[in-house]
Amino acid sequence: MAALPAFDRLVAALEGLPGIGPKSARRLAYYLLAAPEHEAGALAAALAEARERTRSCTICHALTETDPCNICSDPTRDRRLLAVVEDAADVYVLERTREFRGRYHVLAGVLAPLRGIGPDDLNVADLVARVERPSEGEAVEEVLLATNPNVEGESTALYLARRLKPLGVKVTRLALGLPVGAALEFADEVTLSRSLSGRREI
Amino acid sequence: MAALPAFDRLVAALEGLPGIGPKSARRLAYYLLAAPEHEAGALAAALAEARERTRSCTICHALTETDPCNICSDPTRDRRLLAVVEDAADVYVLERTREFRGRYHVLAGVLAPLRGIGPDDLNVADLVARVERPSEGEAVEEVLLATNPNVEGESTALYLARRLKPLGVKVTRLALGLPVGAALEFADEVTLSRSLSGRREI
Repeated sequence: MAALPAFDRLVAALEGLPGIGPKSARRLAYYLLAAPEHEAGALAAALAEARERTRSCTICHALTETDPCNICSDPTRDRRLLAVVEDAADVYVLERTREFRGRYHVLAGVLAPLRGIGPDDLNVADLVARVERPSEGEAVEEVLLATNPNVEGESTALYLARRLKPLGVKVTRLALGLPVGAALEFADEVTLSRSLSGRREI
Repeated sequence: MAALPAFDRLVAALEGLPGIGPKSARRLAYYLLAAPEHEAGALAAALAEARERTRSCTICHALTETDPCNICSDPTRDRRLLAVVEDAADVYVLERTREFRGRYHVLAGVLAPLRGIGPDDLNVADLVARVERPSEGEAVEEVLLATNPNVEGESTALYLARRLKPLGVKVTRLALGLPVGAALEFADEVTLSRSLSGRREI
């Protein structure tokens, strides 16, 4: 077998990325080595530039290239409604629906006691502050807990609800149920029972 | 929607990579921006170093960090047997079997008249030269055409067989048939008929 230490280090670095397995890492490495200099250079430059220019919004912690971010500084967004999400990527996912007109607060993770992640490791303190001591004209009336519908996301939502409700704010959660376009036949039991209990009159 | 031009350029650069779709590109971008500096830096450094150190072997065109490559310069490899493969990555795939003890010749592509790729665009001339005018002690007795078993790979193999057979060398092709561990029921008709016509006495 040919000894290619520099190549193997590139494969190892690529394998460290999320969703990239050993085979993809190797394919990417061959591609990046065969690519013309300007293409490989463009990728490295785009990475360096994006790391240089993007930061976390000081108000909502979303990924931004200005501070505060475009959403926090947009006067047409509804300041009374605040969506709490796990990651900066979730802001993009919700924005894509074009349905949500409030603002965001990125936790940067979820509570995970087994991994030693508590409220102090997340952006919880300033979420509470945004609700408890809003700046003028920034009073929040509803907090939508849009953490993921899995064990950690649910327990994080429960924890936040207990912290926020005493402050007199309405606390809501995303609806659970069948995905649009799905068939009953292929739904798992938990989703189907959540869908039943959340049934709505039409 | 937040305006993130530098972030979008990074996503676009990642989307240009093979096997990376829009969703993976976005996930990778968020990951690379959130990663600690040493990790993002390590990836960029590994890419630059691998591009700097690896080159194409002047004998077989495989990816190498020495020239000639470890395989071409290994005196224990069988010089009489030469495997012709499409890409440098295929060398690794065959090496992994630990069955092939000959040497390699990387075509760097396949014949594809519709895309304007002819023999002059591939490493065909020096393949013919290796067989026709070998250096001392380098005489090739068998050329195994290990191009992919698809339309372009097959027609490239046919073309090479026509060029090489008149030079008095034995020309072979990888066996086609059922993959090990597969069930007859799930084999496509073409593979099954190839498997039938290539049946062997046991």
